[in-house]
Amino acid sequence: MGDAMRRWNGWGDEATEVELPAHGEAFLAELIGPGQRLADASLQEVLARVPASRLAPHPLICQDAEVRVRHARGQSLPDWLAMRSGEFGLFPDGVACPESAEQIRELLAWAQKHDVTLIPYGGGTSVAGHINPQAGQRPVLTLSLERMTRLLDIDEDSLIATFGPGANGPQVESQLRARGYTLGHFPQSWELSTLGGWVASRSSGQQSLRYGRIEQLFAGGKLETFAGTLEIPTFPASAAGPDLRELVLGSEGRFGVISEVRVRISRLAEQERFYAVFLPSWQQALSAIRSLAQARVPLSMLRLSNAIETRTQLALAGHPQQIALLEKYLALRGARDGKCMLTFGVTGNRVQNAASLKQARRLLKGFGGVFTGTLLGKKWEHNRFRFPYLRHGLWERGYLVDTLETATDWSNVDNLLNKVEASLRDELAGEGERVHVFTHLSHVYGEGSSIYTTYVFRPGADYATAMARWQRLKAAASRTIAENRGTISHQHGVGRDHAPYLAAEKGELGMATLRSLAMHFDPDQRLAPGVLLQD
Amino acid sequence: MGDAMRRWNGWGDEATEVELPAHGEAFLAELIGPGQRLADASLQEVLARVPASRLAPHPLICQDAEVRVRHARGQSLPDWLAMRSGEFGLFPDGVACPESAEQIRELLAWAQKHDVTLIPYGGGTSVAGHINPQAGQRPVLTLSLERMTRLLDIDEDSLIATFGPGANGPQVESQLRARGYTLGHFPQSWELSTLGGWVASRSSGQQSLRYGRIEQLFAGGKLETFAGTLEIPTFPASAAGPDLRELVLGSEGRFGVISEVRVRISRLAEQERFYAVFLPSWQQALSAIRSLAQARVPLSMLRLSNAIETRTQLALAGHPQQIALLEKYLALRGARDGKCMLTFGVTGNRVQNAASLKQARRLLKGFGGVFTGTLLGKKWEHNRFRFPYLRHGLWERGYLVDTLETATDWSNVDNLLNKVEASLRDELAGEGERVHVFTHLSHVYGEGSSIYTTYVFRPGADYATAMARWQRLKAAASRTIAENRGTISHQHGVGRDHAPYLAAEKGELGMATLRSLAMHFDPDQRLAPGVLLQD
Repeated sequence: MGDAMRRWNGWGDEATEVELPAHGEAFLAELIGPGQRLADASLQEVLARVPASRLAPHPLICQDAEVRVRHARGQSLPDWLAMRSGEFGLFPDGVACPESAEQIRELLAWAQKHDVTLIPYGGGTSVAGHINPQAGQRPVLTLSLERMTRLLDIDEDSLIATFGPGANGPQVESQLRARGYTLGHFPQSWELSTLGGWVASRSSGQQSLRYGRIEQLFAGGKLETFAGTLEIPTFPASAAGPDLRELVLGSEGRFGVISEVRVRISRLAEQERFYAVFLPSWQQALSAIRSLAQARVPLSMLRLSNAIETRTQLALAGHPQQIALLEKYLALRGARDGKCMLTFGVTGNRVQNAASLKQARRLLKGFGGVFTGTLLGKKWEHNRFRFPYLRHGLWERGYLVDTLETATDWSNVDNLLNKVEASLRDELAGEGERVHVFTHLSHVYGEGSSIYTTYVFRPGADYATAMARWQRLKAAASRTIAENRGTISHQHGVGRDHAPYLAAEKGELGMATLRSLAMHFDPDQRLAPGVLLQD
Repeated sequence: MGDAMRRWNGWGDEATEVELPAHGEAFLAELIGPGQRLADASLQEVLARVPASRLAPHPLICQDAEVRVRHARGQSLPDWLAMRSGEFGLFPDGVACPESAEQIRELLAWAQKHDVTLIPYGGGTSVAGHINPQAGQRPVLTLSLERMTRLLDIDEDSLIATFGPGANGPQVESQLRARGYTLGHFPQSWELSTLGGWVASRSSGQQSLRYGRIEQLFAGGKLETFAGTLEIPTFPASAAGPDLRELVLGSEGRFGVISEVRVRISRLAEQERFYAVFLPSWQQALSAIRSLAQARVPLSMLRLSNAIETRTQLALAGHPQQIALLEKYLALRGARDGKCMLTFGVTGNRVQNAASLKQARRLLKGFGGVFTGTLLGKKWEHNRFRFPYLRHGLWERGYLVDTLETATDWSNVDNLLNKVEASLRDELAGEGERVHVFTHLSHVYGEGSSIYTTYVFRPGADYATAMARWQRLKAAASRTIAENRGTISHQHGVGRDHAPYLAAEKGELGMATLRSLAMHFDPDQRLAPGVLLQD
């Protein structure tokens, strides 16, 4: 149950450290002041506070205190503050690790009989409070799918693979790559997050431009519910009534436990390359990326950093002399202050990739784009899953970092982005605190784009201050999104943190419809209470 | 209300005739025997049988007999037999043509007050019994959206257009083309079918390979229900819980009346071309089309006729000498008996199209494909919406034609296709009657393909015989689909004709879920009873 090497109070492997370079620390200190390192609680201290389990014994359920600690929290910033301070508040009363759909059904029946709440658990990477136990009379059983990770079948003609729901990114890809295939789903949490979790929370990967979001990859599977098993067969497409896949996608554990996932896979591409281009201004960059998406240039990835993110990335890169040379080169070609970095990828066979690259370069040149080849693209590729580790590096230097994301139509992207950034940048001004805020667009569509905003701030003197700051920032940004035609989440789901804002986009009848579905599948409201739909 | 030029008992405009060429008639006579022309009832005879309306008067409701006749049936083969024989059975008690969402809501309230059944009605082109009144105590009001056809708004940055739900294909495209845009949704019924109908029945157009199915084009809108208005805002993508668009898509009038549709549009392409290639055998053709789809070659259309359809099309083309020359040319290059015609399209800018064409030709050559240029592609383009008129031409010569469609994963395409064709070909053997059956694949995906089968048979001595034959054929093919991992519809929906087979793919819990949604939106079960979900 769980990997001994995994950090119990933060992201990833204990052995992996991504440090904030000295140059980056100076950059942040100048922007928002010197870091303020809060003291971490030890695992022993936390273990001492774990109360006795309220669960009856069951052969599939582990009541070990450390296991309960390790399944109590996700990876949101308030989760970090709880884990680092040791103030967990609540722990699950036990963790069950079923090995089959039968065992999941057995646990559902047992939970009903013993009046227990169930929290389906994938990789524990939620950044929206999906998996945290809630206070209540009922004991809480976390149902971890970590033992159901196998590739069960490949239909090589139809390119459909059947997996256990608990397979994480590396488990999915290694089993597929051994046969010459890839799923192509690479969220930043890929090293730890799972297939079932991706489906339950409507995840999107960094190369969704080629492979699609999890909605396009999820072809069918099984959901174990209190009303029975929902089995969804695979079809390439169907007009036979509403698509039930779309009720499983985004169900966030409220409707049932995903026990099997069938996904559309791809043959490994012959070639993959990532390139970087600098655009002279945000307005030109925005027009360029919209044109690329609407012209259907077959790229596999697009990521556009705004000017502040571009500056921040270059500052944190840790090679000041190389960066100075790069900036000199860019300035000579017209990309000076206010320049924006666009990273893009091509994936496919060599002929296709050459054609795509040619189209992209031609189009970008029309917007003043300065092409810099594959060097920065390789750097992006190397670091694509390392950002979550940098949170640890920043923590060590006394800085908190959080991200939030939304999506909106192109006509509203610039407006929403500016308002979200401003809401964060100004929120702590009253206490004389500055917040460093920057943004990229990393999932683009003909209709619009995701907006992914990072904000760095200082915790203040203690955990209570840090938490209060986060709550103010999160609320300000979430309100801004809900009031300005953004979705409350493009790729992380609703959980508990976004639930208060869901009605703004689903409407009154939409919310009633989701509640009616939750009651249909789970009449006693035993599954993931408070997630998606507020109590 | 309705176009005076529209046939009251068949497809399309009265002025348009697509005759069966003499050569084609001889071809059919040899295959299944000489035609048997049944006598048509006149409109006057039918009008005389329309009973008095059971509805109270209302300013928006028309109770005129001819209007009721013209809204009583769709375009399925049993609908044709009913219309041609004059044995309609049932008529709606009236037809309302609201002009706004407010008027739709007013009619819903009125229907509730007067205990009336409502049938939402788009273009009247259903081929699955969606719009036919059902026997019952409640009077039946057909709610036609034919007056809500306007383009209400275009967001030119986001490429989102807002339409009234009643806009048919030409109304959608003419309003968009005037501004330089296209929806790109071209089902064969395009001349008459409507945007709201496409959404309600999960339609797919001939160029779905480029533009997507209606599921991808439908970005949001409004559904008027007995539980209130479901308003779905547009987002390029969202992870905020289950996607409520997907409940409207395929709802077939059971959950509510679509009062506004927002769609993702495209700029008109610089260039569009259609080409034909002949493959020497079905197995090579099948491998080729699968490879094209899985290699993501950016084509806009693919349509592969099997050997019988290829032979039939060449025979019905009506230019025997030209066809003989073509066949000589093809034979010299290896495509002889058993050859299969593949039509494909490229749509985009010239550079993209040239790259796509090059990739497609190279790949097809590897499967023995013989490229014949754009001549047959132009012919396909010219005839793309004319096939429904040919039903009339065949009727005039004493032949009945019907089509059915499904979709399945690639590993099952050949198996399912063969079984469906065999079930139709053999079904009437007991009465010594032959059925001419042929198939094409016209919507291809990485995972699998649609299968579109046409069957031509003779009506027999009278309408009762014709109907009995159709029922046997339809049941045999539908059972075969349901028992062999096909969806009961890839692009026409469920209606009443496919409802008995829906449980095979949705499962028991899936059916219960759809019923629970229907009760949620329409507690008195007043909307489109018997459609999608059997009573």
